[in-house]
Amino acid sequence: MSRIDGRTPQQLRPVTIERGWSKHAEGSVLVSFGDTKVFCTASVTEGVPRWRKGSGEGWVTAEYSMLPRSTNTRGDRESVRGKIGGRTHEISRLIGRSLRAVIDYKALGENTVVIDCDVLQADGGTRTAAITGAYVALADAVTWMQEHKLVKAKTQPLSGTLSAVSVGIVDGVPMLDLAYEEDVRAETDMNVVCTGDGRFVEVQGTAEGEPFERHKLNALLDLAVAGCAELDSIQRAALAG
Amino acid sequence: MSRIDGRTPQQLRPVTIERGWSKHAEGSVLVSFGDTKVFCTASVTEGVPRWRKGSGEGWVTAEYSMLPRSTNTRGDRESVRGKIGGRTHEISRLIGRSLRAVIDYKALGENTVVIDCDVLQADGGTRTAAITGAYVALADAVTWMQEHKLVKAKTQPLSGTLSAVSVGIVDGVPMLDLAYEEDVRAETDMNVVCTGDGRFVEVQGTAEGEPFERHKLNALLDLAVAGCAELDSIQRAALAG
Amino acid sequence: MSRIDGRTPQQLRPVTIERGWSKHAEGSVLVSFGDTKVFCTASVTEGVPRWRKGSGEGWVTAEYSMLPRSTNTRGDRESVRGKIGGRTHEISRLIGRSLRAVIDYKALGENTVVIDCDVLQADGGTRTAAITGAYVALADAVTWMQEHKLVKAKTQPLSGTLSAVSVGIVDGVPMLDLAYEEDVRAETDMNVVCTGDGRFVEVQGTAEGEPFERHKLNALLDLAVAGCAELDSIQRAALAG
Amino acid sequence: MSRIDGRTPQQLRPVTIERGWSKHAEGSVLVSFGDTKVFCTASVTEGVPRWRKGSGEGWVTAEYSMLPRSTNTRGDRESVRGKIGGRTHEISRLIGRSLRAVIDYKALGENTVVIDCDVLQADGGTRTAAITGAYVALADAVTWMQEHKLVKAKTQPLSGTLSAVSVGIVDGVPMLDLAYEEDVRAETDMNVVCTGDGRFVEVQGTAEGEPFERHKLNALLDLAVAGCAELDSIQRAALAG
Amino acid sequence: MSRIDGRTPQQLRPVTIERGWSKHAEGSVLVSFGDTKVFCTASVTEGVPRWRKGSGEGWVTAEYSMLPRSTNTRGDRESVRGKIGGRTHEISRLIGRSLRAVIDYKALGENTVVIDCDVLQADGGTRTAAITGAYVALADAVTWMQEHKLVKAKTQPLSGTLSAVSVGIVDGVPMLDLAYEEDVRAETDMNVVCTGDGRFVEVQGTAEGEPFERHKLNALLDLAVAGCAELDSIQRAALAG
Amino acid sequence: MSRIDGRTPQQLRPVTIERGWSKHAEGSVLVSFGDTKVFCTASVTEGVPRWRKGSGEGWVTAEYSMLPRSTNTRGDRESVRGKIGGRTHEISRLIGRSLRAVIDYKALGENTVVIDCDVLQADGGTRTAAITGAYVALADAVTWMQEHKLVKAKTQPLSGTLSAVSVGIVDGVPMLDLAYEEDVRAETDMNVVCTGDGRFVEVQGTAEGEPFERHKLNALLDLAVAGCAELDSIQRAALAG
Repeated sequence: MSRIDGRTPQQLRPVTIERGWSKHAEGSVLVSFGDTKVFCTASVTEGVPRWRKGSGEGWVTAEYSMLPRSTNTRGDRESVRGKIGGRTHEISRLIGRSLRAVIDYKALGENTVVIDCDVLQADGGTRTAAITGAYVALADAVTWMQEHKLVKAKTQPLSGTLSAVSVGIVDGVPMLDLAYEEDVRAETDMNVVCTGDGRFVEVQGTAEGEPFERHKLNALLDLAVAGCAELDSIQRAALAG
Repeated sequence: MSRIDGRTPQQLRPVTIERGWSKHAEGSVLVSFGDTKVFCTASVTEGVPRWRKGSGEGWVTAEYSMLPRSTNTRGDRESVRGKIGGRTHEISRLIGRSLRAVIDYKALGENTVVIDCDVLQADGGTRTAAITGAYVALADAVTWMQEHKLVKAKTQPLSGTLSAVSVGIVDGVPMLDLAYEEDVRAETDMNVVCTGDGRFVEVQGTAEGEPFERHKLNALLDLAVAGCAELDSIQRAALAG
Repeated sequence: MSRIDGRTPQQLRPVTIERGWSKHAEGSVLVSFGDTKVFCTASVTEGVPRWRKGSGEGWVTAEYSMLPRSTNTRGDRESVRGKIGGRTHEISRLIGRSLRAVIDYKALGENTVVIDCDVLQADGGTRTAAITGAYVALADAVTWMQEHKLVKAKTQPLSGTLSAVSVGIVDGVPMLDLAYEEDVRAETDMNVVCTGDGRFVEVQGTAEGEPFERHKLNALLDLAVAGCAELDSIQRAALAG
Repeated sequence: MSRIDGRTPQQLRPVTIERGWSKHAEGSVLVSFGDTKVFCTASVTEGVPRWRKGSGEGWVTAEYSMLPRSTNTRGDRESVRGKIGGRTHEISRLIGRSLRAVIDYKALGENTVVIDCDVLQADGGTRTAAITGAYVALADAVTWMQEHKLVKAKTQPLSGTLSAVSVGIVDGVPMLDLAYEEDVRAETDMNVVCTGDGRFVEVQGTAEGEPFERHKLNALLDLAVAGCAELDSIQRAALAG
Repeated sequence: MSRIDGRTPQQLRPVTIERGWSKHAEGSVLVSFGDTKVFCTASVTEGVPRWRKGSGEGWVTAEYSMLPRSTNTRGDRESVRGKIGGRTHEISRLIGRSLRAVIDYKALGENTVVIDCDVLQADGGTRTAAITGAYVALADAVTWMQEHKLVKAKTQPLSGTLSAVSVGIVDGVPMLDLAYEEDVRAETDMNVVCTGDGRFVEVQGTAEGEPFERHKLNALLDLAVAGCAELDSIQRAALAG
Repeated sequence: MSRIDGRTPQQLRPVTIERGWSKHAEGSVLVSFGDTKVFCTASVTEGVPRWRKGSGEGWVTAEYSMLPRSTNTRGDRESVRGKIGGRTHEISRLIGRSLRAVIDYKALGENTVVIDCDVLQADGGTRTAAITGAYVALADAVTWMQEHKLVKAKTQPLSGTLSAVSVGIVDGVPMLDLAYEEDVRAETDMNVVCTGDGRFVEVQGTAEGEPFERHKLNALLDLAVAGCAELDSIQRAALAG
């Protein structure tokens, strides 16, 4: 049962996480899941949006975007079109919400971290690669804040670790970390965001063709939880490196 | 273990589906889940978007919007702000994708159905009420198309039935069909779209506070499947009425 | 001389005004002039726009919009197109200006009332139905403000009552309250906004086909003044109800 | 009873109409009503908008705009703000609708005339000056079309002449052609568009302060009709010049 | 070697500068270079943009725009299209930057001057005509500020004079102040902004067809410097007038 | 006379050009001038914009953008702001115009190449790095077109080679290839685009502080011509590699 790139159904693509990819950002990562490459930066600013001022709590938000030729056919720039598309909006919100699930706002203090995830090359799974890379950029930004005394000593704004992976059913077989060609053919497509201790932060499953049964959902969740555990190790290794 | 409005955790709010709420639209429904009221219209046009022309296949799409004072505090109109917000984009996409899961494009022929879901009054669960009502409006539009010979005799563009419900964990208790006040306090929030035969079309779970364990996910899915079965009966009754 | 729906030229369509149509808004009305149905809400907020701060005076403004399928053919959403059309702008301005003619800004104090008029179903005369319903929603909002002590005791922010009606010349005959089919055929089209004591707030007459003579203008004004008087009674009955 | 600039209540400001103010446009006029100066151009193109193709009928439309410093205080450019304001929309629509009232679409053939009215200096009455000047630019463009055989021989696309003037009640006195300072103080403000034979094309009256009685409306209409007759003579003289 | 309009290659078109063209603006000029006519206004406001507050320094900025029918074929309004085009942006920036080169921010104090350059009729060289006229409008605005004590006595916010001209190589011949027809045929096109003492503020040369050699660049600069010296005299005469 | 990074005034920063940086684009390059890093892709599509159809000639255009955190302080995304800033417009136009100067449209045939230049990290000179990299991406795209028979055998759409560099006067000293810190302090700033045979395609000089004399302009042009010659060698080496 071999896949288009020779992987087993349970196998991730080669995942690399390169830190320090920007000289300006407080945290920055180039993450790749096979040919999917996402550049993630974490930008720290003192202060919070107006609606949060005086709360003593911080804020984390994210923006996702694809470079025009990150895909096989060039797409129009959203800046040129003058508006952000629904898919971009949806993924930006997903990334921000996921990261906030592992943030202790009180410990962060009235500081804001903006995560930018720009897809340099797309081959399926850009949103899950983005979350996986964004967590590492965020972790570096938090360390930077600790070093620069923006957060109080002995507080830890990160309440957990976070990674994400896509799973799907292709030709009836549940598979981990779909490449673009597999994604297009998938009957069911799911993105799962987990903490390092195996709990769920987001579960988004979609029937692309046929509606799917509960046992298929379960099989996909099993695969995803295992995949996230593996990604957690890769993140830890990168942060230790 | 009683809820703010006296329901049991497994209980839906009173659900009503009034058909024929517009004299213009080919299908139209006012759906209410308690105090949440959504006006759904289905508009049929011959022809399909350009990228689909000549395929022999139809198209279904949806747009969701909230009236400015459907909520407790008046919100700005997106038309006045000049752009659609991320949440609106996300829900419009969810509704359209869900409905397309029960459409046989070939049987629909080169016709387009646009579903508009406008929230007149919001009290939690607007997107799931919208999907539940939209399905009925779509069913009426399909009947209209059959009567007007826009689809071939003996073909059935609808390949299944569809309803949706929100579930969540509030104060540690899994609950069905959250009202706004419950939704705000929920630790985990999930929207589930099911076909009438109990299969999944969309599963979207989000940790609002703490990440959640697999067993909680399972409890929520159990509640949602039961809720959708009940909604399916209400839809059938409305369509038979 | 009977009209398409059997009315006499001097006859209004059946007019209904249902108050309390929203659980959130300080004033809310579903108004119908025959098949034209407009949902009007009045939203109160303390404070005024920046340019009016410190004046001790309040502000009233309005926004008008049509649901996409309120008309016979579905129209694009202005939020999706990213801009508001000229007709929408024009009518929103007309409604706001008309309502402000019966407001005593000093008595209102530094409070703002925003009136939203959303057309659920259109069959001619949406702007005049909107003004007629909006006045009732505004009156309810003012009562709410008095009950909640937002305006001083013994002051009355409303300096008069207000209703509006369309008139036009169809096949040479001046007619009151045109339905859509009549409106399309009208040679001259006029919208008149009156106070309850029969004075004019707005008079907008347009030659759709031929320019019109002074005596026709006079005949139309006579019809409109009588129509507004009738609407005034209906509004009073609704507010007394 | 003398006015701020020494005029009688029944007197127009000095009105000048200079033709041929652009070397590019098929018709062009600099019109001034006292210190109000509007540059009007008429641009002819063969063909009509898509929705009118094949009808054999032409189209006339107009756009109005104010230069940023045409007013006492500089206003933001609408191009920079990225959207057109309600007032601009409303006046553009009024100008186009008024001009179309004196156009015979059949005689115009499938040609389009776009009228641009750009206010170079504003001192009240810009919309009525614009209509008065635009008519002359349109007349020149029609002559150009006849000379260039864009319309058939012996056909006359203009079915009448057109001018416009503002009237209002200031300190209880009905006055013709209000300057800005008078306009600001007016209790009632009215814009009237007439054909050369004294019929009405548009009548737009607004209570700025108090609602107004029928006799005041009549007095204003009398003034406006006389003013338009005078403007008609000035237009004829300009076109004869 | 005569040009389309009979000029020698070294000759400017007739240049006129009429001051006081607006009753509202603090400085205003109608500048013409042959058939190119640009209306320039300078608007003074006390205070500076937020990012400059408290600096004790002033600000000068500019906006350029073409009326829709200033050109041979009518162009869409940027306000209607909802966005500013690249060319407009580029020229607005050029004008503002050029004017700021002769402004002493300290002497200007915390005041802002906005220069609006609206092209009434275009025949090549609109941006250079705009800069040449804008300088005169700015000079008048500065005088106005001195008279109204907005700048301190004995300070001079203008640190020099400024004019601009286009040059280009047409049919192999370097020419001064290109008319539109020449501009279209030019192989190389250059816009040069000089101070009155012959120094450069902006040099922008573009190969429209073939790349150009250093000696051609030099020949064009020689022409431009001479042209600007001549413009400087015309400006001085206008300001003395 | 050493610079902040130890270079001599005549010295470029280390320049690297990595080809094949995208698996999707027909040409792609990561170019770096010191810490300035720009990702350039060339996307080929058959056909040309509508206004060029049937001409037998091709088209080349470019879009430039900065990632939000490519700079020291995070900037807002233009897609989120809903409009493109003036600087972005200006640089996109410069890149496109420059590349078109070395394109033989006839030889290109009716094909379009879009060049995207996305700044990953900025440290001065992003537009000149972008042009230098874009040329190499374009050359690779042209080779791809030749291999895929999109252009006719034995035709060469590239009529020359192209590179660009910034020069400026810092503390009175003319310097080549300014880093950000130098650029900020420069009195005069110039961007020069040259062909490989030393001719000029664009010369854009700006007085940031004081207007500049002719001899300074000459000194800067000498530096720029030498810098471009060096860049030409680096490009050739990269293309040969």
